Amino acid sequence: MSPSRPFEPDAGVLSGATADVYFDRAQTILQAEQLDPVVTMEVFPRGDGILCGIQEVVAYLRRILGPEHHHDPNPLVEALGEGEAFAAKEIVLRITARYSAFGLYETAILGTLSQCSGWATAARRIVEAAAPIPVIGFGARHVHPKVADQMDYASVVGGCIGASTPAGAGMAGLSPTGTMPHALVLIFGDTVRAAEAFDRHIDPDVPRIVLVDTFKDEAEESLRVAEALGDRLWGVRLDTPSERGRVTPELVKEVRARLDQAGHPKVRIVVSGGMDVERITVFKDAGAPVDSFAVGSAISDAGPIDFTGDLKEIDGHPVAKRGRIPGRTDSPRLRPVDLAG
Amino acid sequence: MSPSRPFEPDAGVLSGATADVYFDRAQTILQAEQLDPVVTMEVFPRGDGILCGIQEVVAYLRRILGPEHHHDPNPLVEALGEGEAFAAKEIVLRITARYSAFGLYETAILGTLSQCSGWATAARRIVEAAAPIPVIGFGARHVHPKVADQMDYASVVGGCIGASTPAGAGMAGLSPTGTMPHALVLIFGDTVRAAEAFDRHIDPDVPRIVLVDTFKDEAEESLRVAEALGDRLWGVRLDTPSERGRVTPELVKEVRARLDQAGHPKVRIVVSGGMDVERITVFKDAGAPVDSFAVGSAISDAGPIDFTGDLKEIDGHPVAKRGRIPGRTDSPRLRPVDLAG
Amino acid sequence: MSPSRPFEPDAGVLSGATADVYFDRAQTILQAEQLDPVVTMEVFPRGDGILCGIQEVVAYLRRILGPEHHHDPNPLVEALGEGEAFAAKEIVLRITARYSAFGLYETAILGTLSQCSGWATAARRIVEAAAPIPVIGFGARHVHPKVADQMDYASVVGGCIGASTPAGAGMAGLSPTGTMPHALVLIFGDTVRAAEAFDRHIDPDVPRIVLVDTFKDEAEESLRVAEALGDRLWGVRLDTPSERGRVTPELVKEVRARLDQAGHPKVRIVVSGGMDVERITVFKDAGAPVDSFAVGSAISDAGPIDFTGDLKEIDGHPVAKRGRIPGRTDSPRLRPVDLAG
Amino acid sequence: MSPSRPFEPDAGVLSGATADVYFDRAQTILQAEQLDPVVTMEVFPRGDGILCGIQEVVAYLRRILGPEHHHDPNPLVEALGEGEAFAAKEIVLRITARYSAFGLYETAILGTLSQCSGWATAARRIVEAAAPIPVIGFGARHVHPKVADQMDYASVVGGCIGASTPAGAGMAGLSPTGTMPHALVLIFGDTVRAAEAFDRHIDPDVPRIVLVDTFKDEAEESLRVAEALGDRLWGVRLDTPSERGRVTPELVKEVRARLDQAGHPKVRIVVSGGMDVERITVFKDAGAPVDSFAVGSAISDAGPIDFTGDLKEIDGHPVAKRGRIPGRTDSPRLRPVDLAG
Amino acid sequence: MSPSRPFEPDAGVLSGATADVYFDRAQTILQAEQLDPVVTMEVFPRGDGILCGIQEVVAYLRRILGPEHHHDPNPLVEALGEGEAFAAKEIVLRITARYSAFGLYETAILGTLSQCSGWATAARRIVEAAAPIPVIGFGARHVHPKVADQMDYASVVGGCIGASTPAGAGMAGLSPTGTMPHALVLIFGDTVRAAEAFDRHIDPDVPRIVLVDTFKDEAEESLRVAEALGDRLWGVRLDTPSERGRVTPELVKEVRARLDQAGHPKVRIVVSGGMDVERITVFKDAGAPVDSFAVGSAISDAGPIDFTGDLKEIDGHPVAKRGRIPGRTDSPRLRPVDLAG
Amino acid sequence: MSPSRPFEPDAGVLSGATADVYFDRAQTILQAEQLDPVVTMEVFPRGDGILCGIQEVVAYLRRILGPEHHHDPNPLVEALGEGEAFAAKEIVLRITARYSAFGLYETAILGTLSQCSGWATAARRIVEAAAPIPVIGFGARHVHPKVADQMDYASVVGGCIGASTPAGAGMAGLSPTGTMPHALVLIFGDTVRAAEAFDRHIDPDVPRIVLVDTFKDEAEESLRVAEALGDRLWGVRLDTPSERGRVTPELVKEVRARLDQAGHPKVRIVVSGGMDVERITVFKDAGAPVDSFAVGSAISDAGPIDFTGDLKEIDGHPVAKRGRIPGRTDSPRLRPVDLAG
Repeated sequence: MSPSRPFEPDAGVLSGATADVYFDRAQTILQAEQLDPVVTMEVFPRGDGILCGIQEVVAYLRRILGPEHHHDPNPLVEALGEGEAFAAKEIVLRITARYSAFGLYETAILGTLSQCSGWATAARRIVEAAAPIPVIGFGARHVHPKVADQMDYASVVGGCIGASTPAGAGMAGLSPTGTMPHALVLIFGDTVRAAEAFDRHIDPDVPRIVLVDTFKDEAEESLRVAEALGDRLWGVRLDTPSERGRVTPELVKEVRARLDQAGHPKVRIVVSGGMDVERITVFKDAGAPVDSFAVGSAISDAGPIDFTGDLKEIDGHPVAKRGRIPGRTDSPRLRPVDLAG
Repeated sequence: MSPSRPFEPDAGVLSGATADVYFDRAQTILQAEQLDPVVTMEVFPRGDGILCGIQEVVAYLRRILGPEHHHDPNPLVEALGEGEAFAAKEIVLRITARYSAFGLYETAILGTLSQCSGWATAARRIVEAAAPIPVIGFGARHVHPKVADQMDYASVVGGCIGASTPAGAGMAGLSPTGTMPHALVLIFGDTVRAAEAFDRHIDPDVPRIVLVDTFKDEAEESLRVAEALGDRLWGVRLDTPSERGRVTPELVKEVRARLDQAGHPKVRIVVSGGMDVERITVFKDAGAPVDSFAVGSAISDAGPIDFTGDLKEIDGHPVAKRGRIPGRTDSPRLRPVDLAG
Repeated sequence: MSPSRPFEPDAGVLSGATADVYFDRAQTILQAEQLDPVVTMEVFPRGDGILCGIQEVVAYLRRILGPEHHHDPNPLVEALGEGEAFAAKEIVLRITARYSAFGLYETAILGTLSQCSGWATAARRIVEAAAPIPVIGFGARHVHPKVADQMDYASVVGGCIGASTPAGAGMAGLSPTGTMPHALVLIFGDTVRAAEAFDRHIDPDVPRIVLVDTFKDEAEESLRVAEALGDRLWGVRLDTPSERGRVTPELVKEVRARLDQAGHPKVRIVVSGGMDVERITVFKDAGAPVDSFAVGSAISDAGPIDFTGDLKEIDGHPVAKRGRIPGRTDSPRLRPVDLAG
Repeated sequence: MSPSRPFEPDAGVLSGATADVYFDRAQTILQAEQLDPVVTMEVFPRGDGILCGIQEVVAYLRRILGPEHHHDPNPLVEALGEGEAFAAKEIVLRITARYSAFGLYETAILGTLSQCSGWATAARRIVEAAAPIPVIGFGARHVHPKVADQMDYASVVGGCIGASTPAGAGMAGLSPTGTMPHALVLIFGDTVRAAEAFDRHIDPDVPRIVLVDTFKDEAEESLRVAEALGDRLWGVRLDTPSERGRVTPELVKEVRARLDQAGHPKVRIVVSGGMDVERITVFKDAGAPVDSFAVGSAISDAGPIDFTGDLKEIDGHPVAKRGRIPGRTDSPRLRPVDLAG
Repeated sequence: MSPSRPFEPDAGVLSGATADVYFDRAQTILQAEQLDPVVTMEVFPRGDGILCGIQEVVAYLRRILGPEHHHDPNPLVEALGEGEAFAAKEIVLRITARYSAFGLYETAILGTLSQCSGWATAARRIVEAAAPIPVIGFGARHVHPKVADQMDYASVVGGCIGASTPAGAGMAGLSPTGTMPHALVLIFGDTVRAAEAFDRHIDPDVPRIVLVDTFKDEAEESLRVAEALGDRLWGVRLDTPSERGRVTPELVKEVRARLDQAGHPKVRIVVSGGMDVERITVFKDAGAPVDSFAVGSAISDAGPIDFTGDLKEIDGHPVAKRGRIPGRTDSPRLRPVDLAG
Repeated sequence: MSPSRPFEPDAGVLSGATADVYFDRAQTILQAEQLDPVVTMEVFPRGDGILCGIQEVVAYLRRILGPEHHHDPNPLVEALGEGEAFAAKEIVLRITARYSAFGLYETAILGTLSQCSGWATAARRIVEAAAPIPVIGFGARHVHPKVADQMDYASVVGGCIGASTPAGAGMAGLSPTGTMPHALVLIFGDTVRAAEAFDRHIDPDVPRIVLVDTFKDEAEESLRVAEALGDRLWGVRLDTPSERGRVTPELVKEVRARLDQAGHPKVRIVVSGGMDVERITVFKDAGAPVDSFAVGSAISDAGPIDFTGDLKEIDGHPVAKRGRIPGRTDSPRLRPVDLAG
């Protein structure tokens, strides 16, 4: 998939300030020694996963290797695509260019792929466990706000149908998805009053999804809200806190049955609260009638998938550090990237 | 500890674009309903750890709640300090202010604390396992470049004595630490030649630490480098790749013995490559004469520690969602924050 | 401890109809062969535990070996006392009498001790885990009604301070303990109305303990009931079903806090629902302010502790089957039983 | 299957003395409030198993709901049959009647089903593990004599071909099964003499099964007994005590071989002593030529399978406590019970 | 398979000095009592495996039971063949002869089969794990030199294609296989110089296999040796010590790639150093291009497979000790042995 | 400890036929190159244990390095003593001599130490578990007869008080220990008759220990034998086969009790049959009155403890292969060996 709008390279990253300092020193030394070979760098992951961040990496490479720079020879970048599955040690990116042109950005390239692919891979596992029930990414509150949009975007790359931040959803070409915060319900002092206010003031295109665990038993509250909003209620979100035993498959079944018995068969049920592959599987196996899962930390807390960059050719000669096979790796899946962007 | 220079609030974060969208909607609704109570929000973690990111959060709070905004009543912010240990469910931050003034930033506050504390806590565990041998943070290549500096800074908050990016080290008031990339050695085609070039061109204040696993056996290469640089060699870095069985305690002992036998007792040995608490413990238990550990993914890949924000008072009345105790939590360790900054 | 009233031997048991049939056949054969030695039978358990049922066994032995039968020689019965701890393989009962006088009752003697000691031992483990919080036995619904009273009595022998059936509590010299069935609340359609009716019609000496999980969230319902009954409310019982995640320590803390904040610090909290040693320990470790635990299946579902009876002397000569030591076992803790009762 | 003779309701049970006391109080309150709705109660188990005790429950229900009481409306009882398999949470019994007519007996109904089904389910597992080798129930010595007959009956419901107590076997329409007690052999002082006396005095219809582990090695004793009784010997029972390493598959093979070599191929081998599913499987896998297994504690020590009773309709309206689905559960396997009995 | 030359019975063994002393005493007693029955002894193992040592046992039996001794009746020996698979408790050897003729040698017979079969069975498991890559036995340094040849021979019986000692390889009809000791390389001070000396002085028929881990990185050294010896180099042996992380599959791949890139595709790679079934499987699963494995302790350290000898007939009558079936075991796989040898 | 008589070097070993063939080739090459440095070889184990075989190794070294050979310079051998405990990687033997004088024997030296120390270490663990109950080694039937004596000797070095082969016991300066084989009892057809024959014909100095599990129950047979032999009976050996459940602690207690009750308190009880550290511990923990344990496979089946020999000095210069520290290891526990013997 492609992001809905181009990634904007970050000035701090371009300055090299977030690169391992030794790359900066390497540039100094090579310049002083007047060494600037054409090198081929191959980038590969340590584990299996879903590639994410490659679009952002390409945006940087276009900025530094693009045709406006009149490189000699012309740089060559080959890569797998955003959202493609990769195997451990498979080459996902290969850059052939003068070392001086891109050596400084190795840290940024690896870091972008590592963390974004970590998130997208976790999301993919969640989505596969939940299928065909859709999943929405809600993890923004667990990551630093500077990368909340990348995390939300990676969730969508991994298969989520929505994400909760305007920036992240927008990066993926979607509108953000959300219900209402517990704080709003607390300030109104009653779920129904909060829901009615939401219904009065928010754009009708936004689905009315009401949080029903703030004050009362979820089943009781679901019925009250359904009575109050009628057909305008898109769904309820069950988010029972761990102090109350979390959402259980039986709760979903009961809320569904009570809504149906009260004449509200169209009201959907969104389940959240510590949902991960294991818990989603429990709900699936129990046949709980969930309409969608909202997943936060199981995506956002996923660790990076480590990527490594290796020089494999220098001025046309195969090389490698000890432990690696010298020369280019046979990688038929790689496709050339248009650096003119 | 305090960062060496003020955190600069990010425009994207201030805009709310990386906030869960429902916070924005809540602001809309409350404004429409002309509801703007004074609320108290308490923030607490789900697990034990080391607090990090609170300085950055305070920087945002100063921007939005500072005296220049003439809030009525005056906001009150209380918090634990950067680098302090916290227990699961302990209150680490309490904000009392009009909801409209800060409600939109809940996502950013929680995300900053979650991810930074996750990194700092992992670093602390590494540092405790390695003590008294010092630890340097090398994790930048595993995280998105927009947060590489925060990650490096958190490593130092957790106890690392250095970090590898200029931005991250600078945030912590340090110079960046590094050796040389494998790429440099590969381009020179020989470790000794690369080391000599480094020695010629890099500021003499920068310690000469040479990577000795690129072409030859580490023990052989260590001796060659020590002969070539003599007293100017600060140390060697052993970073044996997994394909060659990684660094072992016995390798460190042998390199130490061979360096000593050859008259280089002052050359230090830095060990890196997949070092985590378990592996560091193996080195410690084996009595390997390591001078410092360089640690990457064991810090940078640490998951966030989830934080939650709860409204506990509204216009002076104790409240809580189901599952929480209404009213302020007794929190004697909290200290008021000077919002004038 | 002693039961408050004598056990009444059961006619079916006395007839031998519930004995293994081979004991009846043995009596036939020995009579035909005119063999009736004086034998010593020792009874011992296979595991550690708390002795229960010995009072009932003694009631039978008095009936069959009592002085009105003019046995020659006089039978001798020695035993440990009801509620005493025993070790695996320790002799808890020794009978010396003509075999014809009691051989038929071996099945009944062993069965009574096995099942009652199984229950008492389980109760003791629960009581020790809960101490100093008291425990009430609620297991009658899990056992056959013919032994519900023995099970309740064994719970008290094991340390419970109350039990739920009139027969069982009476056997232990107590009044039965109880709250109200969910059925009552369902018929009234509202917990408060059911509680008020209970309060109107039941003897004032019976503590008002109201079940608060039938219709609404437990915290909300606890407050409604406390408002309605005022000082007459002895306590609430939390019995959250597994479909709602069972009672959690945090729920107890919250209900306690909300009752206290609302001015009802004297209302007690009884916790029930799948409580066993492990779960009770979780509540204790979490510091949940429980006033008493009501325990059912963890006591009633306990398996019997197997007991075995061995002939160890025949007409004064030590004997034993293969695998046992011939002759009387040294058993200083045994005390003679007064068969005159 | 059906019991061979009607269950006789017990006076103590009918009095409610073994019911949880709160049911009695509920009756008092409802009467005082003049509330006596027609309710539907559904009874379901917490786990999978074999239904047992339903015939006894029906006997009670006939006594209290039978046509001689002129109930208005006519009560309706639907149930699964004795010995049928049930799944966790499947409805096995549904009663529609005035609450006053049967509410007091909920404890007895649940307790009967719980304990009897626990025994029958354990027996079924044993029987399935042993098939096609038949199993005899020998557990009476592990349960209270008041329920020894119910336990033996449940063993037969679960698939055992015999049981050891006259009352239990009779309840299942069988003659009791047995060999001889160790006590008899000890009193005679020799296995052969005891066997000969048994043979002289016991009805010729009773199979001669001789216990062969009392004094000598089992193989040696088996041959001695076979020589002494000749064709009248039905079989030998191996019951080696744990102190002698219990019966092993190899022992069975050796005894079989030695009996065959000595010309006694028709003498059967019964194996007992701590037999459970695991040990029976070992014997089966080893191809041990066992003719039948005698099983005690693995059946009698089985815990109850908990059953729950829920009101699901009151005066025709669907109801339920929190956590359950209101209204009748679709239960196509239930069949109406003839209350005229 | 058959050994290439007859086993030579050992005088010490023939003297009975290494027999359990009770066999010697038994001979004394039977002679004094003039008892010398014809007995049948059956020998069986406790576990599954590969028979080895039976040729050596037969050599002893020929010496003591051969036709030159004029035994009456003629002894009969039946056995499985060298290298055949056996199952636990299967009869592998049956001897019918006068007890005086062979009773003393039970210890030697059992010991020979136990230890040799233990080695052969371990070798077979290794060989099966490695197939189709061949395995060479290198275990002599782990066993007493008096049995090093038997161990090597057993490795070949188990499927190894070579072994390292002249005596052991010769027993199996092979030339010994070897490379060069680390000591040789150390004395020459350089691997290439040691290889060249080997090449100068050792018979050209002996394959040149050079150890490449003594001084330098294995990949570097492999290339140096290949350059020096050219086509005369048969292969290199990778034996990386545990202190350097042992040989890894990636090292084999890299050495293969570097040799191929340098124009030495015919140089083979032998892998050694702690290879066992588990590690060999790792290499196989990783697709490492190994040409042969050299295995030492995984064969030589294998424990014996215990064998037992039972008398099953005495003077034509079936007998057995307790626990065994009297009489000959049906053993259709046994074949008569020609005692004339 | 010292062996009772000198070890006799084996001609096959001295010929080098059981050495890895590459040592022979190394000698050829060095001779051709006229290289014969003085080297220091250090020998160390891979695990902790008890040293055994060093006396035998020294016997070889005396033969090849003794003063009659006029070596220049004089060889130096330093070692730990027979039966001393060693730690993993501790130097247990250091040889300084011309390489040509001893290089060929590395395989024999390592093999002798490996296997003998393996046995002695296993014996030590058994002996420590059993203490203060003594242990006798009975493992000869599990090892090749050529090393049965070394194995028995190693058992004694490890702490056993006796061993079963004349050669092995003799090597340790003891008389062999034994009872009688099952074959003897089977031939006599009765344990008592076999015992009486033993008593008639065997030297009165040999303790009468009778095997009591061949035909009858062990307790019954023990009493029969005690009655028959009276005070001449030293003890009984319980060796119940696995088919009869092996010896149990309870059997030992019962046999002890029955012997004592019958007036034979001096008859000892020897326990055998699959005894290992775990089972011995069970007997000890149960307080079984065992007088001695006879242990076979738990000693004889122990795997070798691998030993390695490294050249650490050549003509006075420290050397080492990769992975080892060059030069002599500081080894204060080593003591010089008198090569004049």
